[in-house]
Amino acid sequence: MHKPVVILSAPQMGENIGAVARIMSNFGVDELRIVNPRDGWPNEKAQAMSAHGSFVLDQAKVYDSLQDAIADRSIVYGTASLERFMVKPIITPWEMERAEFQNNKVGFLFGCEKSGLTNDELSLCDAIIRIPTSEKNHSLNIAQAVAILLYEYMKIEASDVKVAESIGELATKEEVTHLISFLESNLDERNFFKSPNMKPTMMRNITNMLVKAKLSQQDARTLFGIFRAMIG
Amino acid sequence: MHKPVVILSAPQMGENIGAVARIMSNFGVDELRIVNPRDGWPNEKAQAMSAHGSFVLDQAKVYDSLQDAIADRSIVYGTASLERFMVKPIITPWEMERAEFQNNKVGFLFGCEKSGLTNDELSLCDAIIRIPTSEKNHSLNIAQAVAILLYEYMKIEASDVKVAESIGELATKEEVTHLISFLESNLDERNFFKSPNMKPTMMRNITNMLVKAKLSQQDARTLFGIFRAMIG
Repeated sequence: MHKPVVILSAPQMGENIGAVARIMSNFGVDELRIVNPRDGWPNEKAQAMSAHGSFVLDQAKVYDSLQDAIADRSIVYGTASLERFMVKPIITPWEMERAEFQNNKVGFLFGCEKSGLTNDELSLCDAIIRIPTSEKNHSLNIAQAVAILLYEYMKIEASDVKVAESIGELATKEEVTHLISFLESNLDERNFFKSPNMKPTMMRNITNMLVKAKLSQQDARTLFGIFRAMIG
Repeated sequence: MHKPVVILSAPQMGENIGAVARIMSNFGVDELRIVNPRDGWPNEKAQAMSAHGSFVLDQAKVYDSLQDAIADRSIVYGTASLERFMVKPIITPWEMERAEFQNNKVGFLFGCEKSGLTNDELSLCDAIIRIPTSEKNHSLNIAQAVAILLYEYMKIEASDVKVAESIGELATKEEVTHLISFLESNLDERNFFKSPNMKPTMMRNITNMLVKAKLSQQDARTLFGIFRAMIG
């Protein structure tokens, strides 16, 4: 069983980072990664709100790119309160499965408080977790969303049910990113992106497709071999 | 289905009351009752933290006795993070059952932030709900505890809709029995049951299978059509 990590991308308020650390310590999930915090790091307001969870803040790692923050993960769950126009599986928190945590290093990714995950951030996610909310107020506080995901993880961890391990370990995000970069540079060389305007969207679609494919490490190696053979 | 109410006994910080109102509005549980708030009522800090949930605060009722606040309830769940020396059933949030909300008016009772429910308050509770926490930090923020209980309630409430939508109307027992009889007489004709001794067990297995299948009325009609076509 691998404990998930919590990744906050561009968090704005220190109070929220502190509240996230507190609930993480409540559920025994101690590894926090912070990408480009708005108000810098360390943050006094985060400390003040973390209560007995300040040790989570003390050992938090700060990154300046999301790709680096998720490099060692093989599954990244994004969170979104509203439906987004993107081809990603959407699940509820209670649909997470034990096998995923047994076989993979999982990251829970949360976007900035104001606007949530960007489309580029979402493109790096294997699936979206949506917490169903009332029509009267869709907007969950970020620490509340973290609480509910970690609560469901805690239930999985606490249960003794054994499940069959799936075949093959998923590729890490680093392996997938490497594959995508390799593809991008070779497509550039071959003038695949007809206009520079189109490229970001096309690359996002390619990323989505490769993430959705749930490549195993073997798959990733095979694809590399195929790409290399084609350009050779 | 009766929506539960949230009862805060002697809450201390307005910020927490506001965060509770916000998460209540997220999960469509709108009735908040407040017993003896430390800083009086209304409370500006509560308003500031409630975001789009301020309507919950606007309609909150304030009481000066817990007995009055729970008078119309038939089940009151107290919450406690640590084991208390009191003879009460202790359940986890996910052990709450749908039937309780169908048949009863339920209240979720939370004590003051500093020390939780007093023994007198606990004595009024039918059961205690305990959210399992890590040994490193047992102390949950009150709004986080509310979030988790209401999240479990939301799942119970949502399961109604889901079942109705996905399965369609179940076949009546009469329709299933009719299907089984039809099958039995036709299998008899074809000498399916090798020996008369075996038949009761085999029919019981077939019945179990068809009952377990939770056939909709449409499923039952389809199966009938298939059987008829096969014997035709």
